[in-house]
Amino acid sequence: MKDPTIADIDARRQAVGQMMAPTAAYADSDMFKLQCSRASNKPAARRWDNHLTAESLARAPGLLKVAARFLKRPGIISLAGGLPTPDYFSFRSISAKVPISSQSSLLEAESTITMGIHDIASENAAFDLSVALNYGQAAGSAQMIRWITEHVELVHNPPYADWDTCLTTGSTDGLYKALRMLCDKNRGDSWMTEEYSYTTALETAIPLGIRTVGINMDAEGLIPEAMDEILTNWDVAKRGARKPHVLYTVPTGQSPTGSTQSASRRRAIYGICQKHDVYIIEDDPYYFLQLRSRTSGGQPPPKLSVGEFLASMPTSFLSIDTDGRVLRLDSFSKILAPGTRMGWVTASEQMIERFIRHSETANQGPSGFSQAIVYKLVDEKWGHTGFLNWLQRLQAGYTDRRDVMMSAFDKFLPKLIVSWDVPSAGMFCWLKIKYNCHPNSNIYSPLDIEEEIFSACLKRGVLLAKGSWFRAEPDLLLQDVFFRLTFAAANAESIEVAVRAFGTALRTIFGLV
Amino acid sequence: MKDPTIADIDARRQAVGQMMAPTAAYADSDMFKLQCSRASNKPAARRWDNHLTAESLARAPGLLKVAARFLKRPGIISLAGGLPTPDYFSFRSISAKVPISSQSSLLEAESTITMGIHDIASENAAFDLSVALNYGQAAGSAQMIRWITEHVELVHNPPYADWDTCLTTGSTDGLYKALRMLCDKNRGDSWMTEEYSYTTALETAIPLGIRTVGINMDAEGLIPEAMDEILTNWDVAKRGARKPHVLYTVPTGQSPTGSTQSASRRRAIYGICQKHDVYIIEDDPYYFLQLRSRTSGGQPPPKLSVGEFLASMPTSFLSIDTDGRVLRLDSFSKILAPGTRMGWVTASEQMIERFIRHSETANQGPSGFSQAIVYKLVDEKWGHTGFLNWLQRLQAGYTDRRDVMMSAFDKFLPKLIVSWDVPSAGMFCWLKIKYNCHPNSNIYSPLDIEEEIFSACLKRGVLLAKGSWFRAEPDLLLQDVFFRLTFAAANAESIEVAVRAFGTALRTIFGLV
Repeated sequence: MKDPTIADIDARRQAVGQMMAPTAAYADSDMFKLQCSRASNKPAARRWDNHLTAESLARAPGLLKVAARFLKRPGIISLAGGLPTPDYFSFRSISAKVPISSQSSLLEAESTITMGIHDIASENAAFDLSVALNYGQAAGSAQMIRWITEHVELVHNPPYADWDTCLTTGSTDGLYKALRMLCDKNRGDSWMTEEYSYTTALETAIPLGIRTVGINMDAEGLIPEAMDEILTNWDVAKRGARKPHVLYTVPTGQSPTGSTQSASRRRAIYGICQKHDVYIIEDDPYYFLQLRSRTSGGQPPPKLSVGEFLASMPTSFLSIDTDGRVLRLDSFSKILAPGTRMGWVTASEQMIERFIRHSETANQGPSGFSQAIVYKLVDEKWGHTGFLNWLQRLQAGYTDRRDVMMSAFDKFLPKLIVSWDVPSAGMFCWLKIKYNCHPNSNIYSPLDIEEEIFSACLKRGVLLAKGSWFRAEPDLLLQDVFFRLTFAAANAESIEVAVRAFGTALRTIFGLV
Repeated sequence: MKDPTIADIDARRQAVGQMMAPTAAYADSDMFKLQCSRASNKPAARRWDNHLTAESLARAPGLLKVAARFLKRPGIISLAGGLPTPDYFSFRSISAKVPISSQSSLLEAESTITMGIHDIASENAAFDLSVALNYGQAAGSAQMIRWITEHVELVHNPPYADWDTCLTTGSTDGLYKALRMLCDKNRGDSWMTEEYSYTTALETAIPLGIRTVGINMDAEGLIPEAMDEILTNWDVAKRGARKPHVLYTVPTGQSPTGSTQSASRRRAIYGICQKHDVYIIEDDPYYFLQLRSRTSGGQPPPKLSVGEFLASMPTSFLSIDTDGRVLRLDSFSKILAPGTRMGWVTASEQMIERFIRHSETANQGPSGFSQAIVYKLVDEKWGHTGFLNWLQRLQAGYTDRRDVMMSAFDKFLPKLIVSWDVPSAGMFCWLKIKYNCHPNSNIYSPLDIEEEIFSACLKRGVLLAKGSWFRAEPDLLLQDVFFRLTFAAANAESIEVAVRAFGTALRTIFGLV
């Protein structure tokens, strides 16, 4: 089957007609795929029963959500579920001003989206506040599931048949539930991450009693051979933990290192995971923040067509996942706004079903306001084409910011003791400090020198993130001094001021003035 | 100190001046109380270290959230946190149409609330989208914490000094985290609930390996003497679980029974909990849905002033909690809309701190849209007075609906075999079926008869909730047949139609026609 296109998606919607999804309607991805699982000639996902925790296996469907299935009968009156009447909701309609972007501008124009309380009944709309603001399925509204399914098929086209999706309240929620699903301290479980990893991910595992094993990295991120060696030579007694059966990886614009795995790197990692029966959590919030290079003449890179743009995106683990061994986390936080507190997971049907069971008793899915407003924006206002246009313009914005920071590095940092790679995706730059050039490196530890630099910058009004904060195994001796700098938050002028202060602090501390 | 009033709250705000709470600003209740903990002459809460789980005790503050404290320094430039610039948020402003209610009408008029992206900078506003839609503290925005603190002080005025609050993504989230905080299967923990309880609560405990112990109820809900007896005679070996140290109770308009504990009942339950060192989770989503009686002439009850209204509210466990042994769950779901996916917990500082640590790695708090829109409504548009007016009108609406259902019961149900109490709060009515009047009660079990009635109603187009769905201990033999009916969802006409069908089904099954 050829790669799915936006035209295919549009044609499918035309053929199916208006969506009918009332309050708490059940939905899954198979209802919205171009080809449903059964019609697909792709292989089925493997089963992960041995990887699941006792807790996850013990989750039964919520009784009242099951009872909601009876609501499908036409004309049924329910006195069963305690769903408040929408007449008593304290919101009659919501609106938002949103940007219309084009290939040439992030804010081509401003437009308004609006959702009323009874738009389904009065305007034959697909979604309204009577549905969005009532109780719903923990998996998310049918309206959002449809859009996400189409998006996943368009961008990743997973190579197995029975993939599914559901919403999260952001990737923090997604990772937390994935960990509870896969790792159990009573089983002595451990998991693997990049040796420097996202602090919240590491902090999620600690109270759960899950040991973290850091895998060495290079400029392309996680090194598959290093992972293979650890797994091949795993000694349960020495490690005090079962051989890891889960890899957590941020393949694109990794936090904190800014590294992006190449396609061949990803295939190699996937192969090692197959070899050792390792399940992969692919956390990819920076996927769409590709930072392209300027032309040799210093001009911004040329605009891409939708097809070219899609072709320019990295090879996700999901897109090479023939086994269904990947649970992929996507998030609107970095591409619309963090406050949506909304994202989605994609994995095999088995895993998504377990995930939803957890959501039913943990939070019942994302805010109805978030679902309503994001749906109106990405589905009705933008559509898939408009969404991709927005992302391309966003990339240009972040690329400009990265270049501002790179210029400041070139101008203000002492290259004798600081080195860095130019990040090709994400929000972060990772600077390595040659701490052994410090005049007192014989008596100061790397940790001391890191703290000295951090404090000196603070005194000069600049807050940086210490590399040591991100260590997967903080008990190991710190071998290198790194700092993580973001170009996402401060404006261009402040970035310049801050990098200059950082450079001055380094020169002073290392006696270069 | 006299009871706090809305005038006191207004005066405090006047004295303090405009709130200054930028992106990810830290906030807790003590910043907004009429009297902060240290100035209070109330006792301090007890410590609950022995009740906390190993998991909860192992939670450390999130590193990046801690680093955010440095942001307080004036003029500091942060290159540390990966917070996207608000310039790239895809939402420039949001609006909602909301009802203005008065003491005499739920929808006196419609009004509009609006929040722009830079209102703080451009209009000296307290809150804007640049803050609400960026990453924030998991406890919730300072703006919402302030309103909730004032509300809790006004309505419950907890009798100990160091109480605190934080937001939840609804009470499902609140209960889930409270359970993880207090109950540990590795310790053999169990918890107590009403013998018929909220299914989601029961379903939350099962996969966590927490045993549920049901406490007998009467028309006033949980019977304290029954709880005392169970705790006094607890036999670890026989029960296969540690003596319960947690009580989960829904004191007002309990689901499924509709029962409401009297003030003296609550004091007695609190006393038994003190005697056995039991911690209380007070889940009170129906607190404000008091259903008052009509006058003897059949007229709606008279409107109350704000003071009278507050005085008419039940005695919450929080309001008699001298020990700080109550974690109270409040929710906007039943009083604004479920889709807000937002509520709050109130408990001692120690417990709220543990709760927030969990939120930091589980979901990072509620949606920014929810926080922005609800803040604009309950703080800026309504204020505390307007909020209480709304609640009083909401009570009148639900009271009318309850009365419609009660009339239908009187008209259509065979009293020979069905009995019920008129609920004084909440959304539910609990009907007891004299199953032993069934012509085949000698060969059919109560479970069979319940299923027969359920199916017969379904065939007649009516969905009811079976009493057996709500059993705290489903392994015990079902002794009684109950059905739960809600008057919150369907309209008056449908309620009549459904109750008539239910009555007909009962008459047919029990051979009363």
